[in-house]
Amino acid sequence: MSRGLRVAVVGATGAVGTEMVRQLEISPLPVAEFRPLASARSAGSQVQFRGQAYKVRELVPEALDGLDLAFFSAGGEVSRTFVPEAVRRGVLVIDNSSAFRLEDGVPLVVPEVNFSAAREHRGLIANPNCSTIQMVVALKPIRDRFGLKRITVATYQAVSGAGYRALQSLYRELEAALRGEEIAPEVLPVASQPVKYPIALNVIPQIDVFVEEAYTREEMKMVLETQKIFADSHIEVGATCVRVPVGIGHSEVVYVETEEELPSLEEIRAILRGGEGIVVLDDPAGAVYPTPRHVSGRREVFVGRIRKDLFRPNGLHLFVVADNLVKGAAGNAVQIAERLYAEGLLPQA
Amino acid sequence: MSRGLRVAVVGATGAVGTEMVRQLEISPLPVAEFRPLASARSAGSQVQFRGQAYKVRELVPEALDGLDLAFFSAGGEVSRTFVPEAVRRGVLVIDNSSAFRLEDGVPLVVPEVNFSAAREHRGLIANPNCSTIQMVVALKPIRDRFGLKRITVATYQAVSGAGYRALQSLYRELEAALRGEEIAPEVLPVASQPVKYPIALNVIPQIDVFVEEAYTREEMKMVLETQKIFADSHIEVGATCVRVPVGIGHSEVVYVETEEELPSLEEIRAILRGGEGIVVLDDPAGAVYPTPRHVSGRREVFVGRIRKDLFRPNGLHLFVVADNLVKGAAGNAVQIAERLYAEGLLPQA
Repeated sequence: MSRGLRVAVVGATGAVGTEMVRQLEISPLPVAEFRPLASARSAGSQVQFRGQAYKVRELVPEALDGLDLAFFSAGGEVSRTFVPEAVRRGVLVIDNSSAFRLEDGVPLVVPEVNFSAAREHRGLIANPNCSTIQMVVALKPIRDRFGLKRITVATYQAVSGAGYRALQSLYRELEAALRGEEIAPEVLPVASQPVKYPIALNVIPQIDVFVEEAYTREEMKMVLETQKIFADSHIEVGATCVRVPVGIGHSEVVYVETEEELPSLEEIRAILRGGEGIVVLDDPAGAVYPTPRHVSGRREVFVGRIRKDLFRPNGLHLFVVADNLVKGAAGNAVQIAERLYAEGLLPQA
Repeated sequence: MSRGLRVAVVGATGAVGTEMVRQLEISPLPVAEFRPLASARSAGSQVQFRGQAYKVRELVPEALDGLDLAFFSAGGEVSRTFVPEAVRRGVLVIDNSSAFRLEDGVPLVVPEVNFSAAREHRGLIANPNCSTIQMVVALKPIRDRFGLKRITVATYQAVSGAGYRALQSLYRELEAALRGEEIAPEVLPVASQPVKYPIALNVIPQIDVFVEEAYTREEMKMVLETQKIFADSHIEVGATCVRVPVGIGHSEVVYVETEEELPSLEEIRAILRGGEGIVVLDDPAGAVYPTPRHVSGRREVFVGRIRKDLFRPNGLHLFVVADNLVKGAAGNAVQIAERLYAEGLLPQA
């Protein structure tokens, strides 16, 4: 008789992993055993969970024995090696890396959008890319009512999306800049690549590596993951992903064209207000709209600057903001587990 | 016998005015008399020009007597009052405010794009909005070759575009944030409006006041000024303007659809490289693209992240960056005067 779930967080000391622990901590999920795992480098450090200190164990295959659920957020390479080990052991994996997202038979799930896909899992559910999650949550009610033909999106992505080191580097660069000095940039755009650009008082139009046709991997994720989540390979997505000197909170300028003609602005606002997981902040007369400062710690997606296109009766402009570590990563992953549990699809306490 | 031009800079102590003086200083224009003018509040302060100190005089109608040329950058209200006074006195005005930009008979000029319009002036030439200028320079060679049907643009605009006070406020907010404190935001989004948002570690999706249909004035400028500069009321422009915590340098994610099908990416790059006033920085393999840090003090418009749309044979994505005080304001204004002088349309030394 289990008195709750045996849960591991893999990559528990990273930027997303830390938020994963916090999201699990505030979750109604009954956790009977909590097991933080990380690379050998971070093993031995301590993580607090529900008032108790836990020693981080090194991620080896055996560390995955006897679990019900494992959240992975330690990058694609770790997931490629250890997710199969976990699945083989009968652990349900919710993987925040991009390793398996586009694989057939692996559901790619945003609870508000396509939770039904999660019910078909075969031991592994993929958590989508941060910038994709918040966009599809915002667009779901529009798509349901009017159909979606195309999306053009420009992102304003926070530095925490590139991890702790990038965030520390932003603060160091800012301190230097305010002293009138300049220090060599160390992390961005891509930690593993030789070319570096400053992010303090700058924007960098590259997130992740370049892959094909001059697009970055982040941009291609927005194209392919959106198509998979909406289960529609005909949706045209044109994305440009840009890093901005913000700590937490991704923003997106989104333009969409719907299949059907759109109703009045007031009706569109009402439809968005009724969308699951959406907070509409939109009152031009009162200068009300979301900014990254509004979203910290929140699981909802914030939508504002709602406007009909001036030329196309099926064109709509939106500004979409969410906490990239919460709704864009850890919160979404824990939400998936919460809903599976609520539906009796995880061992019950 | 004149030995050069008698030139006034109105608003000589503001963010754009200071840059105007600098652009004039490094210009080949022969300046026989330099006259800095400003509001009563700033009158009496000193401005350096070509190695000499000049006392700023108060802007009254008589201060505009005996000039050949006056650059106005003291806001719309000052221009509405004093530009007609200058024109009446036979002074050629190049006005950086939005007061007369859309008026019939007032040429709205970006030298690389529509200099011919300047030759038709009747004493007043308007300088376009910063975010419009850099976009039309980048799109000119594309439009010339393939025609332009529509533009969707998201901006990443620097704080200096809102003036000195906004810039000082950004630095104060950043200093507080790095100390782990928060200070009340004072200037943005719009100095004259009661609602304020922080800009440090934030982005604000509002530039200038809201005007109609939930669009801001800045967004409507990008629509209407682009149509006027390209002399084509059929170009569809959808703009979303966003302030980012950058000091100098506006960036823009621009998506366009051309009338004709586009050639290969390499050919498009070559066409952009051949465009007047454009610097192409675009090599995905080497992580080469422009950022605001590249453009400070430059009159050119920088273009990178050039990509063909994945779904539309006439769709093109660009990332466009320029110094908003130089090419977006003062540099463009001085360029107009330089070209008029070179064509003999200003009194010759």
